[in-house]
Amino acid sequence: MDNRKHVEVCFAPGDYEYFKGKSEIVVVIDVLRATSAICAAFQNGIKSIIPVATIEEAREYQKKGYLVGAERKGQIVEGFDFGNSPYSYMKDELKGKEVVLSTTNGTKALSIVSDAPIVVVGALNNLDALCEWLAVQDKNVLCLCSGWQNKFNLEDTICAGAISDKLISTGKFKSDEDSSIAAKYLYLSAWKNPLGYLKSSSHRKRLKNLNLNEDIKYCLTPNKTNVIPILKNGKLVKL
Amino acid sequence: MDNRKHVEVCFAPGDYEYFKGKSEIVVVIDVLRATSAICAAFQNGIKSIIPVATIEEAREYQKKGYLVGAERKGQIVEGFDFGNSPYSYMKDELKGKEVVLSTTNGTKALSIVSDAPIVVVGALNNLDALCEWLAVQDKNVLCLCSGWQNKFNLEDTICAGAISDKLISTGKFKSDEDSSIAAKYLYLSAWKNPLGYLKSSSHRKRLKNLNLNEDIKYCLTPNKTNVIPILKNGKLVKL
Repeated sequence: MDNRKHVEVCFAPGDYEYFKGKSEIVVVIDVLRATSAICAAFQNGIKSIIPVATIEEAREYQKKGYLVGAERKGQIVEGFDFGNSPYSYMKDELKGKEVVLSTTNGTKALSIVSDAPIVVVGALNNLDALCEWLAVQDKNVLCLCSGWQNKFNLEDTICAGAISDKLISTGKFKSDEDSSIAAKYLYLSAWKNPLGYLKSSSHRKRLKNLNLNEDIKYCLTPNKTNVIPILKNGKLVKL
Repeated sequence: MDNRKHVEVCFAPGDYEYFKGKSEIVVVIDVLRATSAICAAFQNGIKSIIPVATIEEAREYQKKGYLVGAERKGQIVEGFDFGNSPYSYMKDELKGKEVVLSTTNGTKALSIVSDAPIVVVGALNNLDALCEWLAVQDKNVLCLCSGWQNKFNLEDTICAGAISDKLISTGKFKSDEDSSIAAKYLYLSAWKNPLGYLKSSSHRKRLKNLNLNEDIKYCLTPNKTNVIPILKNGKLVKL
Protein backbone atom coordinates (compact mmCIF):
# COMPACT_ATOMS: atom_id res chain seq x y z
CA MET A 1 0.00 0.00 0.00
CA ASP A 2 1.15 3.45 -0.90
CA ASN A 3 1.01 5.56 2.26
CA ARG A 4 2.81 8.52 0.78
CA LYS A 5 1.25 11.93 1.18
CA HIS A 6 0.68 14.25 -1.76
CA VAL A 7 2.67 17.34 -2.56
CA GLU A 8 1.00 19.20 -5.42
CA VAL A 9 1.56 22.54 -7.13
CA CYS A 10 -1.13 25.01 -8.15
CA PHE A 11 0.25 27.59 -10.60
CA ALA A 12 -2.01 30.53 -9.79
CA PRO A 13 -4.83 31.58 -7.44
CA GLY A 14 -7.37 31.25 -10.28
CA ASP A 15 -6.68 27.49 -10.42
CA TYR A 16 -7.09 26.99 -6.68
CA GLU A 17 -10.68 25.80 -7.09
CA TYR A 18 -9.36 22.61 -8.78
CA PHE A 19 -7.11 21.81 -5.80
CA LYS A 20 -9.21 23.12 -2.92
CA GLY A 21 -9.99 20.82 -0.02
CA LYS A 22 -7.51 18.10 -0.97
CA SER A 23 -4.60 19.16 1.24
CA GLU A 24 -4.42 19.89 4.95
CA ILE A 25 -1.47 22.25 4.48
CA VAL A 26 -1.33 25.05 1.92
CA VAL A 27 2.01 26.79 1.33
CA VAL A 28 1.49 30.24 -0.19
CA ILE A 29 4.42 31.36 -2.35
CA ASP A 30 5.15 34.81 -3.77
CA VAL A 31 8.92 34.89 -4.21
CA LEU A 32 8.98 38.35 -5.82
CA ARG A 33 8.35 39.68 -3.21
CA ALA A 34 5.51 39.31 -0.70
CA THR A 35 6.35 35.99 0.94
CA SER A 36 10.08 36.78 0.90
CA ALA A 37 9.34 40.07 2.65
CA ILE A 38 7.08 38.30 5.17
CA CYS A 39 9.90 35.88 6.02
CA ALA A 40 12.33 38.81 6.36
CA ALA A 41 9.87 40.54 8.69
CA PHE A 42 9.66 37.59 11.07
CA GLN A 43 13.40 37.05 10.88
CA ASN A 44 13.65 40.69 12.03
CA GLY A 45 11.36 40.11 15.01
CA ILE A 46 8.03 41.47 13.81
CA LYS A 47 5.15 40.26 16.04
CA SER A 48 2.46 39.63 13.43
CA ILE A 49 1.27 40.55 9.93
CA ILE A 50 -2.35 40.93 8.95
CA PRO A 51 -2.58 40.18 5.20
CA VAL A 52 -5.44 41.95 3.43
CA ALA A 53 -6.53 41.55 -0.17
CA THR A 54 -7.64 45.08 -1.03
CA ILE A 55 -6.30 48.63 -0.72
CA GLU A 56 -9.64 49.61 0.87
CA GLU A 57 -9.09 47.18 3.74
CA ALA A 58 -5.53 48.46 4.09
CA ARG A 59 -6.81 52.05 4.40
CA GLU A 60 -9.34 51.01 7.04
CA TYR A 61 -6.53 49.59 9.15
CA GLN A 62 -4.47 52.74 8.56
CA LYS A 63 -7.32 54.86 9.92
CA LYS A 64 -7.30 52.73 13.06
CA GLY A 65 -3.62 53.56 13.58
CA TYR A 66 -1.96 50.40 12.28
CA LEU A 67 1.36 50.39 10.45
CA VAL A 68 0.32 49.45 6.91
CA GLY A 69 2.27 48.37 3.84
CA ALA A 70 0.68 48.32 0.40
CA GLU A 71 2.11 47.45 -2.99
CA ARG A 72 0.57 47.32 -6.43
CA LYS A 73 2.42 46.47 -9.65
CA GLY A 74 5.79 46.56 -7.90
CA GLN A 75 5.44 50.01 -6.32
CA ILE A 76 4.45 51.39 -2.90
CA VAL A 77 0.86 52.63 -3.06
CA GLU A 78 0.64 56.38 -2.40
CA GLY A 79 -0.14 57.17 1.21
CA PHE A 80 1.39 54.02 2.67
CA ASP A 81 4.69 53.71 4.54
CA PHE A 82 6.18 50.73 2.79
CA GLY A 83 5.49 48.16 0.07
CA ASN A 84 6.81 44.63 -0.19
CA SER A 85 10.56 45.10 -0.30
CA PRO A 86 12.19 42.70 2.18
CA TYR A 87 14.50 45.54 3.20
CA SER A 88 11.52 47.59 4.44
CA TYR A 89 10.92 44.97 7.10
CA MET A 90 14.42 44.96 8.53
CA LYS A 91 14.05 48.24 10.39
CA ASP A 92 14.36 48.30 14.18
CA GLU A 93 11.13 50.25 14.55
CA LEU A 94 9.13 47.21 13.32
CA LYS A 95 10.46 44.78 15.95
CA GLY A 96 7.64 43.49 18.14
CA LYS A 97 5.01 45.31 16.07
CA GLU A 98 1.86 44.19 14.31
CA VAL A 99 1.62 45.41 10.71
CA VAL A 100 -0.93 45.15 7.91
CA LEU A 101 0.08 44.25 4.36
CA SER A 102 -1.65 44.27 0.99
CA THR A 103 0.19 43.25 -2.20
CA THR A 104 -0.68 42.65 -5.87
CA ASN A 105 -0.55 38.88 -5.71
CA GLY A 106 0.70 37.39 -2.44
CA THR A 107 -1.83 38.67 0.04
CA LYS A 108 -4.63 37.93 -2.43
CA ALA A 109 -3.47 34.32 -2.53
CA LEU A 110 -3.40 34.27 1.29
CA SER A 111 -6.97 35.55 1.38
CA ILE A 112 -8.40 32.81 -0.84
CA VAL A 113 -6.86 29.95 1.19
CA SER A 114 -7.85 31.21 4.61
CA ASP A 115 -10.33 28.31 4.90
CA ALA A 116 -7.56 25.68 4.64
CA PRO A 117 -6.72 23.89 7.93
CA ILE A 118 -3.08 25.04 7.94
CA VAL A 119 -1.64 27.90 5.87
CA VAL A 120 2.07 28.68 5.93
CA VAL A 121 4.25 31.07 3.98
CA GLY A 122 6.97 29.76 1.67
CA ALA A 123 9.82 31.45 -0.15
CA LEU A 124 13.27 30.49 -1.35
CA ASN A 125 14.47 32.38 1.73
CA ASN A 126 13.01 29.80 4.14
CA LEU A 127 13.12 26.76 1.85
CA ASP A 128 15.01 24.18 3.89
CA ALA A 129 13.44 25.06 7.25
CA LEU A 130 9.97 24.90 5.69
CA CYS A 131 10.65 21.57 3.99
CA GLU A 132 12.03 20.01 7.18
CA TRP A 133 8.87 21.04 8.99
CA LEU A 134 6.53 19.89 6.19
CA ALA A 135 8.32 16.53 5.98
CA VAL A 136 7.32 15.56 9.54
CA GLN A 137 3.69 16.75 9.54
CA ASP A 138 2.31 13.60 7.86
CA LYS A 139 -0.15 15.75 5.91
CA ASN A 140 -0.92 16.44 2.23
CA VAL A 141 0.71 19.64 1.00
CA LEU A 142 -0.43 22.07 -1.68
CA CYS A 143 1.99 24.73 -2.91
CA LEU A 144 -0.06 27.68 -4.12
CA CYS A 145 1.89 30.00 -6.39
CA SER A 146 0.67 33.59 -6.25
CA GLY A 147 1.60 34.16 -9.90
CA TRP A 148 1.27 37.52 -11.53
CA GLN A 149 -2.28 38.85 -11.82
CA ASN A 150 -3.59 35.29 -11.94
CA LYS A 151 -1.07 34.11 -14.51
CA PHE A 152 1.68 31.53 -14.10
CA ASN A 153 5.08 32.85 -13.09
CA LEU A 154 8.47 31.18 -13.14
CA GLU A 155 9.93 32.16 -9.77
CA ASP A 156 7.01 30.91 -7.68
CA THR A 157 6.82 27.71 -9.71
CA ILE A 158 10.54 27.03 -9.24
CA CYS A 159 10.17 27.53 -5.48
CA ALA A 160 7.17 25.16 -5.46
CA GLY A 161 9.18 22.66 -7.52
CA ALA A 162 12.01 22.88 -4.99
CA ILE A 163 9.61 22.15 -2.13
CA SER A 164 8.11 19.21 -4.06
CA ASP A 165 11.49 17.78 -4.94
CA LYS A 166 12.74 18.00 -1.35
CA LEU A 167 9.59 16.38 0.05
CA ILE A 168 9.54 13.62 -2.58
CA SER A 169 13.19 12.83 -1.88
CA THR A 170 12.25 11.97 1.74
CA GLY A 171 10.31 8.99 0.33
CA LYS A 172 7.20 10.10 2.19
CA PHE A 173 5.60 12.18 -0.57
CA LYS A 174 4.49 11.83 -4.18
CA SER A 175 3.03 14.13 -6.85
CA ASP A 176 0.17 13.18 -9.15
CA GLU A 177 -0.68 16.39 -10.95
CA ASP A 178 1.09 17.38 -14.16
CA SER A 179 1.59 20.89 -12.79
CA SER A 180 3.55 19.39 -9.88
CA ILE A 181 5.69 17.28 -12.22
CA ALA A 182 6.38 20.33 -14.42
CA ALA A 183 7.29 22.48 -11.41
CA LYS A 184 9.82 19.88 -10.31
CA TYR A 185 11.37 19.69 -13.80
CA LEU A 186 11.58 23.48 -13.99
CA TYR A 187 13.21 23.61 -10.55
CA LEU A 188 15.74 20.93 -11.47
CA SER A 189 16.80 22.75 -14.63
CA ALA A 190 16.83 26.17 -12.95
CA TRP A 191 18.53 25.36 -9.70
CA LYS A 192 22.17 25.73 -10.60
CA ASN A 193 21.65 29.32 -11.63
CA PRO A 194 18.24 30.72 -10.66
CA LEU A 195 19.23 34.32 -11.37
CA GLY A 196 20.38 33.41 -14.87
CA TYR A 197 17.34 31.22 -15.44
CA LEU A 198 14.97 33.94 -14.40
CA LYS A 199 16.66 36.74 -16.27
CA SER A 200 14.07 36.47 -19.02
CA SER A 201 11.12 36.11 -16.64
CA SER A 202 8.47 38.76 -17.02
CA HIS A 203 8.28 39.80 -13.38
CA ARG A 204 12.02 40.07 -13.02
CA LYS A 205 12.04 42.46 -16.01
CA ARG A 206 9.22 44.41 -14.40
CA LEU A 207 11.14 44.80 -11.12
CA LYS A 208 14.44 45.50 -12.85
CA ASN A 209 12.79 48.43 -14.60
CA LEU A 210 11.86 49.69 -11.14
CA ASN A 211 15.51 49.47 -9.97
CA LEU A 212 14.78 46.63 -7.61
CA ASN A 213 17.79 44.48 -8.40
CA GLU A 214 18.88 44.24 -4.76
CA ASP A 215 15.43 42.99 -3.82
CA ILE A 216 15.54 40.39 -6.57
CA LYS A 217 18.92 39.08 -5.42
CA TYR A 218 17.69 38.88 -1.84
CA CYS A 219 14.46 37.08 -2.77
CA LEU A 220 16.24 34.52 -4.97
CA THR A 221 18.76 33.55 -2.28
CA PRO A 222 17.78 30.30 -0.56
CA ASN A 223 17.82 29.76 3.18
CA LYS A 224 18.45 33.21 4.59
CA THR A 225 16.18 32.36 7.52
CA ASN A 226 14.60 29.49 9.45
CA VAL A 227 11.31 31.22 10.19
CA ILE A 228 8.02 29.69 9.07
CA PRO A 229 5.18 32.21 9.12
CA ILE A 230 1.80 30.58 9.76
CA LEU A 231 -1.74 31.95 9.51
CA LYS A 232 -3.62 31.95 12.84
CA ASN A 233 -7.03 33.63 13.07
CA GLY A 234 -6.34 35.85 10.07
CA LYS A 235 -2.89 36.91 11.25
CA LEU A 236 0.50 35.65 10.21
CA VAL A 237 2.68 34.75 13.18
CA LYS A 238 5.95 32.90 13.63
CA LEU A 239 5.46 29.15 14.00
CA MET B 1 13.33 48.37 -33.28
CA ASP B 2 12.10 44.94 -32.35
CA ASN B 3 9.77 43.80 -35.11
CA ARG B 4 9.51 40.25 -33.87
CA LYS B 5 6.06 38.75 -33.49
CA HIS B 6 4.93 37.07 -30.29
CA VAL B 7 4.53 33.38 -29.74
CA GLU B 8 2.91 32.77 -26.36
CA VAL B 9 1.57 29.74 -24.52
CA CYS B 10 -1.68 29.53 -22.57
CA PHE B 11 -1.73 26.45 -20.34
CA ALA B 12 -5.47 25.80 -20.19
CA PRO B 13 -8.78 27.11 -21.58
CA GLY B 14 -9.58 28.73 -18.21
CA ASP B 15 -6.60 31.08 -18.65
CA TYR B 16 -7.59 32.11 -22.17
CA GLU B 17 -9.23 35.31 -20.92
CA TYR B 18 -5.75 36.65 -19.99
CA PHE B 19 -4.44 36.09 -23.53
CA LYS B 20 -7.55 36.79 -25.58
CA GLY B 21 -7.39 39.31 -28.40
CA LYS B 22 -3.60 39.63 -28.44
CA SER B 23 -2.82 37.16 -31.23
CA GLU B 24 -4.17 36.87 -34.75
CA ILE B 25 -3.50 33.13 -34.85
CA VAL B 26 -4.56 30.66 -32.16
CA VAL B 27 -3.19 27.12 -32.31
CA VAL B 28 -5.39 24.71 -30.36
CA ILE B 29 -3.48 21.74 -28.97
CA ASP B 30 -4.83 18.54 -27.45
CA VAL B 31 -2.10 15.97 -28.04
CA LEU B 32 -3.87 13.17 -26.14
CA ARG B 33 -5.90 12.85 -28.34
CA ALA B 34 -8.35 15.24 -30.02
CA THR B 35 -6.03 17.34 -32.17
CA SER B 36 -3.88 14.32 -33.03
CA ALA B 37 -7.05 12.51 -34.17
CA ILE B 38 -8.16 15.57 -36.17
CA CYS B 39 -4.80 15.63 -37.98
CA ALA B 40 -5.09 11.88 -38.65
CA ALA B 41 -8.59 12.42 -40.05
CA PHE B 42 -7.45 15.03 -42.58
CA GLN B 43 -4.39 12.95 -43.46
CA ASN B 44 -6.90 10.19 -44.25
CA GLY B 45 -8.95 12.42 -46.54
CA ILE B 46 -11.87 13.44 -44.37
CA LYS B 47 -13.71 16.47 -45.86
CA SER B 48 -14.50 18.43 -42.70
CA ILE B 49 -15.02 18.15 -38.94
CA ILE B 50 -17.56 20.14 -36.97
CA PRO B 51 -16.23 20.47 -33.41
CA VAL B 52 -18.92 20.83 -30.76
CA ALA B 53 -18.47 21.48 -27.04
CA THR B 54 -21.33 19.46 -25.56
CA ILE B 55 -22.80 15.97 -25.87
CA GLU B 56 -26.21 17.57 -26.38
CA GLU B 57 -25.01 19.34 -29.53
CA ALA B 58 -23.41 16.09 -30.69
CA ARG B 59 -26.74 14.27 -30.26
CA GLU B 60 -28.57 16.97 -32.23
CA TYR B 61 -26.23 16.41 -35.17
CA GLN B 62 -26.67 12.65 -34.82
CA LYS B 63 -30.43 13.05 -35.13
CA LYS B 64 -29.87 14.97 -38.35
CA GLY B 65 -27.96 11.98 -39.75
CA TYR B 66 -24.37 13.13 -39.29
CA LEU B 67 -21.52 10.78 -38.42
CA VAL B 68 -20.69 11.80 -34.86
CA GLY B 69 -17.77 11.02 -32.55
CA ALA B 70 -17.94 11.74 -28.83
CA GLU B 71 -15.45 11.11 -26.07
CA ARG B 72 -15.53 11.88 -22.37
CA LYS B 73 -12.80 10.98 -19.86
CA GLY B 74 -10.95 8.89 -22.42
CA GLN B 75 -13.87 6.69 -23.49
CA ILE B 76 -16.39 6.66 -26.36
CA VAL B 77 -19.70 8.05 -25.13
CA GLU B 78 -22.49 5.45 -25.32
CA GLY B 79 -24.52 5.74 -28.47
CA PHE B 80 -21.76 7.25 -30.62
CA ASP B 81 -19.74 5.52 -33.33
CA PHE B 82 -16.27 6.62 -32.35
CA GLY B 83 -14.34 8.70 -29.83
CA ASN B 84 -11.03 10.46 -30.29
CA SER B 85 -8.66 7.64 -31.15
CA PRO B 86 -6.61 8.65 -34.22
CA TYR B 87 -7.10 5.09 -35.52
CA SER B 88 -10.88 5.63 -35.68
CA TYR B 89 -10.30 8.26 -38.34
CA MET B 90 -8.19 6.13 -40.66
CA LYS B 91 -11.11 4.10 -42.01
CA ASP B 92 -11.94 4.24 -45.71
CA GLU B 93 -15.59 4.93 -44.97
CA LEU B 94 -14.70 8.37 -43.60
CA LYS B 95 -12.86 9.61 -46.70
CA GLY B 96 -14.60 12.64 -48.18
CA LYS B 97 -17.11 12.76 -45.32
CA GLU B 98 -18.13 15.50 -42.90
CA VAL B 99 -18.15 14.37 -39.26
CA VAL B 100 -19.03 15.95 -35.93
CA LEU B 101 -16.78 15.59 -32.88
CA SER B 102 -17.11 16.37 -29.19
CA THR B 103 -14.29 15.60 -26.74
CA THR B 104 -13.52 16.25 -23.06
CA ASN B 105 -11.00 19.01 -23.63
CA GLY B 106 -10.01 19.63 -27.26
CA THR B 107 -13.33 20.58 -28.82
CA LYS B 108 -14.15 22.72 -25.77
CA ALA B 109 -10.93 24.66 -26.37
CA LEU B 110 -11.89 25.05 -30.05
CA SER B 111 -15.27 26.43 -29.04
CA ILE B 112 -13.89 29.21 -26.81
CA VAL B 113 -11.48 30.54 -29.47
CA SER B 114 -13.93 30.60 -32.35
CA ASP B 115 -13.85 34.43 -32.24
CA ALA B 116 -10.10 34.55 -33.03
CA PRO B 117 -9.23 35.69 -36.58
CA ILE B 118 -7.41 32.44 -37.45
CA VAL B 119 -7.71 29.14 -35.57
CA VAL B 120 -5.60 26.13 -36.55
CA VAL B 121 -5.10 22.72 -35.01
CA GLY B 122 -1.71 21.68 -33.67
CA ALA B 123 -0.30 18.36 -32.51
CA LEU B 124 3.08 16.72 -32.38
CA ASN B 125 1.87 14.83 -35.46
CA ASN B 126 1.88 17.95 -37.66
CA LEU B 127 4.56 19.93 -35.80
CA ASP B 128 7.04 20.84 -38.54
CA ALA B 129 4.45 21.55 -41.24
CA LEU B 130 2.52 23.77 -38.84
CA CYS B 131 5.64 25.66 -37.73
CA GLU B 132 6.77 26.25 -41.32
CA TRP B 133 3.38 27.73 -42.10
CA LEU B 134 3.24 29.84 -38.90
CA ALA B 135 6.75 31.17 -39.52
CA VAL B 136 5.73 32.90 -42.77
CA GLN B 137 2.40 34.39 -41.67
CA ASP B 138 3.93 37.48 -39.99
CA LYS B 139 1.30 37.29 -37.24
CA ASN B 140 1.30 36.89 -33.46
CA VAL B 141 0.68 33.31 -32.38
CA LEU B 142 -0.99 31.96 -29.26
CA CYS B 143 -0.70 28.25 -28.46
CA LEU B 144 -3.76 27.25 -26.45
CA CYS B 145 -3.29 24.00 -24.56
CA SER B 146 -6.54 22.13 -23.99
CA GLY B 147 -5.27 20.72 -20.70
CA TRP B 148 -7.28 18.24 -18.68
CA GLN B 149 -10.56 19.56 -17.32
CA ASN B 150 -9.12 23.07 -17.22
CA LYS B 151 -5.87 22.03 -15.56
CA PHE B 152 -2.35 22.21 -16.98
CA ASN B 153 -1.08 19.10 -18.71
CA LEU B 154 2.41 18.12 -19.74
CA GLU B 155 1.91 16.79 -23.26
CA ASP B 156 0.09 19.84 -24.61
CA THR B 157 2.60 22.15 -22.95
CA ILE B 158 5.54 20.28 -24.47
CA CYS B 159 3.94 20.52 -27.91
CA ALA B 160 3.36 24.27 -27.37
CA GLY B 161 6.98 24.62 -26.20
CA ALA B 162 8.16 22.86 -29.35
CA ILE B 163 6.17 25.27 -31.53
CA SER B 164 7.54 28.26 -29.58
CA ASP B 165 11.11 27.02 -29.79
CA LYS B 166 10.89 26.42 -33.54
CA LEU B 167 9.34 29.84 -34.20
CA ILE B 168 11.83 31.68 -31.96
CA SER B 169 14.73 29.94 -33.69
CA THR B 170 13.66 31.58 -36.98
CA GLY B 171 14.61 34.93 -35.41
CA LYS B 172 11.19 36.33 -36.26
CA PHE B 173 9.45 35.54 -32.96
CA LYS B 174 9.86 36.15 -29.24
CA SER B 175 8.03 35.11 -26.05
CA ASP B 176 7.27 37.45 -23.16
CA GLU B 177 5.03 35.41 -20.90
CA ASP B 178 6.51 33.19 -18.20
CA SER B 179 4.19 30.37 -19.29
CA SER B 180 5.78 30.52 -22.75
CA ILE B 181 9.30 30.45 -21.30
CA ALA B 182 8.39 27.48 -19.07
CA ALA B 183 6.82 25.59 -21.98
CA LYS B 184 10.01 25.99 -23.98
CA TYR B 185 12.16 24.76 -21.07
CA LEU B 186 9.87 21.76 -20.56
CA TYR B 187 10.02 20.94 -24.27
CA LEU B 188 13.81 21.20 -24.36
CA SER B 189 14.23 18.84 -21.42
CA ALA B 190 11.55 16.42 -22.68
CA TRP B 191 12.40 16.27 -26.33
CA LYS B 192 14.99 13.50 -26.44
CA ASN B 193 12.53 11.05 -24.95
CA PRO B 194 8.97 12.33 -24.81
CA LEU B 195 7.50 8.91 -24.02
CA GLY B 196 9.86 8.50 -21.05
CA TYR B 197 9.29 12.05 -19.92
CA LEU B 198 5.56 11.67 -20.01
CA LYS B 199 5.43 8.27 -18.38
CA SER B 200 4.51 9.89 -15.09
CA SER B 201 2.01 12.33 -16.59
CA SER B 202 -1.48 12.05 -15.24
CA HIS B 203 -3.29 11.76 -18.55
CA ARG B 204 -0.91 9.14 -19.86
CA LYS B 205 -1.64 7.04 -16.77
CA ARG B 206 -5.34 7.59 -17.35
CA LEU B 207 -5.13 6.38 -20.96
CA LYS B 208 -2.79 3.51 -20.12
CA ASN B 209 -5.40 2.23 -17.70
CA LEU B 210 -7.82 2.24 -20.64
CA ASN B 211 -5.41 0.15 -22.76
CA LEU B 212 -4.71 3.01 -25.13
CA ASN B 213 -0.95 2.56 -25.41
CA GLU B 214 -1.02 2.39 -29.21
CA ASP B 215 -2.89 5.68 -29.32
CA ILE B 216 -0.36 7.29 -26.97
CA LYS B 217 2.57 6.16 -29.11
CA TYR B 218 0.86 7.49 -32.24
CA CYS B 219 0.01 10.85 -30.67
CA LEU B 220 3.51 11.38 -29.31
CA THR B 221 5.22 10.73 -32.65
CA PRO B 222 6.18 13.99 -34.37
CA ASN B 223 5.56 14.75 -38.03
CA LYS B 224 3.38 11.90 -39.17
CA THR B 225 1.55 14.31 -41.47
CA ASN B 226 1.79 17.69 -43.20
CA VAL B 227 -1.89 18.61 -42.84
CA ILE B 228 -2.90 21.80 -41.06
CA PRO B 229 -6.58 21.77 -40.06
CA ILE B 230 -8.07 25.26 -39.95
CA LEU B 231 -11.40 26.52 -38.62
CA LYS B 232 -13.64 28.10 -41.29
CA ASN B 233 -17.21 29.09 -40.44
CA GLY B 234 -17.36 26.69 -37.51
CA LYS B 235 -15.93 23.75 -39.45
CA LEU B 236 -12.41 22.37 -39.51
CA VAL B 237 -11.10 21.92 -43.03
CA LYS B 238 -7.69 21.22 -44.53
CA LEU B 239 -5.68 24.38 -45.14
